[in-house]
Amino acid sequence: MTLKVGVIGTGMIGRDHIRRLTEVVSGAEVVAVSDANEVVAKEVAAGLPAATVHATGEELIADDRVEAVVVCSWGPTHEQYVVASIEAGKPVFCEKPLASTTEACQRIMAAELAGGRRLVQVGFMRRYDAPYRALKQAIDSGVVGAPLIYYSGHRNPSVPEHYTRDMAIVDTAVHDFDVTRWLLGEELTAIRVLAGKPNRHGGELLDPLLMVLESSSGVLVTVETSVNIRYGYDIRGEVVGEEGTAALADTGQVVLRRANSAGVAVPEDWRERFVLAYDVEFQEWINEVTGGRTLTGPSSWDGYAAQVVCDAGVRSLHEGDRVEIALGTRPALYS
Amino acid sequence: MTLKVGVIGTGMIGRDHIRRLTEVVSGAEVVAVSDANEVVAKEVAAGLPAATVHATGEELIADDRVEAVVVCSWGPTHEQYVVASIEAGKPVFCEKPLASTTEACQRIMAAELAGGRRLVQVGFMRRYDAPYRALKQAIDSGVVGAPLIYYSGHRNPSVPEHYTRDMAIVDTAVHDFDVTRWLLGEELTAIRVLAGKPNRHGGELLDPLLMVLESSSGVLVTVETSVNIRYGYDIRGEVVGEEGTAALADTGQVVLRRANSAGVAVPEDWRERFVLAYDVEFQEWINEVTGGRTLTGPSSWDGYAAQVVCDAGVRSLHEGDRVEIALGTRPALYS
Amino acid sequence: MTLKVGVIGTGMIGRDHIRRLTEVVSGAEVVAVSDANEVVAKEVAAGLPAATVHATGEELIADDRVEAVVVCSWGPTHEQYVVASIEAGKPVFCEKPLASTTEACQRIMAAELAGGRRLVQVGFMRRYDAPYRALKQAIDSGVVGAPLIYYSGHRNPSVPEHYTRDMAIVDTAVHDFDVTRWLLGEELTAIRVLAGKPNRHGGELLDPLLMVLESSSGVLVTVETSVNIRYGYDIRGEVVGEEGTAALADTGQVVLRRANSAGVAVPEDWRERFVLAYDVEFQEWINEVTGGRTLTGPSSWDGYAAQVVCDAGVRSLHEGDRVEIALGTRPALYS
Amino acid sequence: MTLKVGVIGTGMIGRDHIRRLTEVVSGAEVVAVSDANEVVAKEVAAGLPAATVHATGEELIADDRVEAVVVCSWGPTHEQYVVASIEAGKPVFCEKPLASTTEACQRIMAAELAGGRRLVQVGFMRRYDAPYRALKQAIDSGVVGAPLIYYSGHRNPSVPEHYTRDMAIVDTAVHDFDVTRWLLGEELTAIRVLAGKPNRHGGELLDPLLMVLESSSGVLVTVETSVNIRYGYDIRGEVVGEEGTAALADTGQVVLRRANSAGVAVPEDWRERFVLAYDVEFQEWINEVTGGRTLTGPSSWDGYAAQVVCDAGVRSLHEGDRVEIALGTRPALYS
Repeated sequence: MTLKVGVIGTGMIGRDHIRRLTEVVSGAEVVAVSDANEVVAKEVAAGLPAATVHATGEELIADDRVEAVVVCSWGPTHEQYVVASIEAGKPVFCEKPLASTTEACQRIMAAELAGGRRLVQVGFMRRYDAPYRALKQAIDSGVVGAPLIYYSGHRNPSVPEHYTRDMAIVDTAVHDFDVTRWLLGEELTAIRVLAGKPNRHGGELLDPLLMVLESSSGVLVTVETSVNIRYGYDIRGEVVGEEGTAALADTGQVVLRRANSAGVAVPEDWRERFVLAYDVEFQEWINEVTGGRTLTGPSSWDGYAAQVVCDAGVRSLHEGDRVEIALGTRPALYS
Repeated sequence: MTLKVGVIGTGMIGRDHIRRLTEVVSGAEVVAVSDANEVVAKEVAAGLPAATVHATGEELIADDRVEAVVVCSWGPTHEQYVVASIEAGKPVFCEKPLASTTEACQRIMAAELAGGRRLVQVGFMRRYDAPYRALKQAIDSGVVGAPLIYYSGHRNPSVPEHYTRDMAIVDTAVHDFDVTRWLLGEELTAIRVLAGKPNRHGGELLDPLLMVLESSSGVLVTVETSVNIRYGYDIRGEVVGEEGTAALADTGQVVLRRANSAGVAVPEDWRERFVLAYDVEFQEWINEVTGGRTLTGPSSWDGYAAQVVCDAGVRSLHEGDRVEIALGTRPALYS
Repeated sequence: MTLKVGVIGTGMIGRDHIRRLTEVVSGAEVVAVSDANEVVAKEVAAGLPAATVHATGEELIADDRVEAVVVCSWGPTHEQYVVASIEAGKPVFCEKPLASTTEACQRIMAAELAGGRRLVQVGFMRRYDAPYRALKQAIDSGVVGAPLIYYSGHRNPSVPEHYTRDMAIVDTAVHDFDVTRWLLGEELTAIRVLAGKPNRHGGELLDPLLMVLESSSGVLVTVETSVNIRYGYDIRGEVVGEEGTAALADTGQVVLRRANSAGVAVPEDWRERFVLAYDVEFQEWINEVTGGRTLTGPSSWDGYAAQVVCDAGVRSLHEGDRVEIALGTRPALYS
Repeated sequence: MTLKVGVIGTGMIGRDHIRRLTEVVSGAEVVAVSDANEVVAKEVAAGLPAATVHATGEELIADDRVEAVVVCSWGPTHEQYVVASIEAGKPVFCEKPLASTTEACQRIMAAELAGGRRLVQVGFMRRYDAPYRALKQAIDSGVVGAPLIYYSGHRNPSVPEHYTRDMAIVDTAVHDFDVTRWLLGEELTAIRVLAGKPNRHGGELLDPLLMVLESSSGVLVTVETSVNIRYGYDIRGEVVGEEGTAALADTGQVVLRRANSAGVAVPEDWRERFVLAYDVEFQEWINEVTGGRTLTGPSSWDGYAAQVVCDAGVRSLHEGDRVEIALGTRPALYS
């Protein structure tokens, strides 16, 4: 019962997922790859026991051996591969973003709805992270009462040169948006993006940003993006409930007492922080696909909703006002 | 060199300060008391070695034996006693608020400025709390870089029946406003007050409130008031700097491992949390007054500024908008 | 490159390892099982895609399809299956203990030495636990200087009825002995076992025990076993070095603030605490076996050394004195 | 009701206590001083409002103005001043040690017993430290069940050149002995001192030492002295009870996130760690003396018991064996 997977896109993240499917998780093998750069695709395939190289993602999807598709290509190409997978009736795991525009996300949902069953999963890996899962479990257990405020902090030591102002929202905070929706079990309904005193390490960026969001039941949410904060890759989250709070604990596993300090390590980057989440994400996806079970991971709707929140956030950043978020009705398939 | 103090107001807080002046701190004695309820004043005086009871605060201030005045009476009377003390040339420690209105605060400053020297200290005791002082020291040391965001959390297990909506701002958050100004060394320039999903324990209150403020250099500040949160009296604060963050640590002094948990106690109320801060506050005031040194504690200006921020906050709560805070020019006496 | 594994012993731990080999780790399948209770063995096999049931462990080992053996049977049978595996030239993973007596461990080593290559791995899973690995990394990095003292704490909420006095050493502390040897990279040379005031929940047991050990370079080691401590399953470890200390951090992933406490959860039992360690243990073993690499996990020597320390510990417990530990020369195969 | 205090010994610790009595605590003034070095004594007196300089401690004790005595002179002189104070019927606070030998301690007790009331308090300040008091409260509350093991850790970054091997016991661990007796409410009955691999920063010292003690009810106690550990002055304590454990929390008041670490500061030295304990110690002593109440602080018996444990510890260090501790019967005065 090994799931035969085809991987579209063999760049850094694609190769990492191929390693994961091949050496880490149980029950999958990579039988086909494709990439815009065929030389790279061939190199990657050469390291695998039995992988065919396809000239295009569409050919890969059409390959009869391929039972499920993983899309790791450049964002603007996501729509075409995801839709093709849907039309081929094959489960497709798509790295975030689901697509580059709200309209593209809607077209993907339309295709999936036409087929009448969930085939798409979006790569919001935080939902598979053990600390976040423990946080969700704490919330759902009612131990702190109903959530009233959620603080989300997203801190990077630095960002690459090509990082633009909007990316703090569409590339960075998008994870906070998704995980907030998931933790609260509610949609976000409005956003206001504030930029204050800029970090001198941030060049022309507006960094940090402090976003204030509202959820459908009135939970107030702040999202901080600090992407030049130097000290580490630090993901923070605290839900304030009616009778207590629950927060992500520090992830350091050893308390060091040295140099007049007692403390734990903060991760250096997102790989260190979320490597296990990626593993679990894929293992559960494989198990669900292989077992013919309904997918429970982030859906097309989740990809769409994140996109709409990002759009509203970018508008708020540019216009300086609170922007309402209108998702429309959620189709029953995604309930 | 014992400082002879007169205390106006012998209610709960007044009696606590008399105990503090008499049994805890060094270098002071209480030589006179007065209260609107003369029976209570006489009872309190009876427990002191050598305290005169005065019919009015004005008489007490005029008493030649009284070298310094402590005002613990009802808020609306603060102005008259503080101004009378200033006019008598006597140092006066006034519990917060300095006065009930912005105009009253301005009249106090005018009186003090007319005298040409600082005589007034306002009872913002957090500035004397060891954890807050350690936080300020961390900020000032530059170890986390310039502050960019400050999160302030003010959580009460419950509030009394007479607590009104505005009190979350003027009675509760006023401490956060003052301590933020002090920590950052900057004025606050705008405030927006948000009320979301209400805590079911809060009755008609808007609780929690999430306030977003701006400082003169652009630091973004959030103040959370959660005044029915049941779990304890919890004062939180984290400054996000350019290269790191510094936060108030938990104050529990014993790690208990029991019942599947490892943790520390959260204080039950503000007395437990700030008792030592009050002691230090008085000791330093006494030392400065006795030593003829310039007062370094919260000044009339600080009392005035807190009042103006509160006024803006209340307006924002009622009107739903961002409200700018205009303090005017800070007189040189308060620089 | 899937490793075909035969599992001897299909009791609780055997079935858990079969699940792990089948559903969790990558690159293995279970092709044969056997158990003293053939009914159970058949039930287990029925749940697997292609597993043969063998009447005896010896038959399973002789099965040509079986490339590697996992021994989860009753301790006294370990020797025979491990030796048979060695003689068949097949890698064998043996749950702890390696064997029931020192002499049996020596016979296993003799068989392995006769073959001239490492085939045996013992199931000391703590070496694969992320917190312990972080602790070892901290020690080896030199960040706290050379280790001088190591405190090891092993706490169980309770133990089953059949738990005897000696089991605190041979069943519980044996993990502390192994992980101490591994963390320090040294042998243990002496042990003294102390029993003080007994826990009223421990019946006739001597509980807790406090053991004081010495390592070859003179590191002092304490091992506490508290096996009726109710509050949780808590594994503690702190190395005191020349310039600092490093300790296992708490593993709870969410800080809960509720009911006047701020804290994290302590695991309920060893499964919760070490489930990921077992996964990693098997994945690495499979990878090494499949890749034809020299085994790096706990060896026969490690199983033997743990046994000798346990023997000395039991003697010390009974006789009340310090007992020296003599391992003899470590064969080059195990260096 | 100001207590008039005479201070014998105006070295570093004496001057610090004079500052404390004069500027920090309430209800005391220093009216007389003496020192072996009269020049120093005169300098100190010159900084006080109304202090007489006496040529000898005995003269100071005889001074009618002196109502209570504080002994901060060199250890070998403690006995004579304490006995003289007792004979003069004056309360005497004596810095540790109470005296240099067991016999001297016994002579002090004899003198006090002859007078029939407690006049002596020994300067074991840890009993006044807020974290230790919280630990004792936790133990006494029964929240972790009856104590079974107590771990005490005493870490110094470094020690002065004149520090000898025995001082790790008589100067350093003596505090752990006293605080253990107080926390457990029991006497210590045996001690074994172990020296392992020495810290390379410790020169000829045996450092660290690991001591294993037993209490009258069978509680097992370890005391670690690490006096060259560089990283800070760190006082650790954890009691293991029948149903949980309670430990001193870290004392750092700010969590710093910087340089890939999240942690709190460890104190630099004992002054920083225990400054507040000294203040409370004196305030409570003054209140009890002034109020004519029975002293509740560390008594002559406590000073004596600590001395006997130290003697046994030194013998164990030199002889390498477990040494029993025999205190004799505790006089009713000290019950």
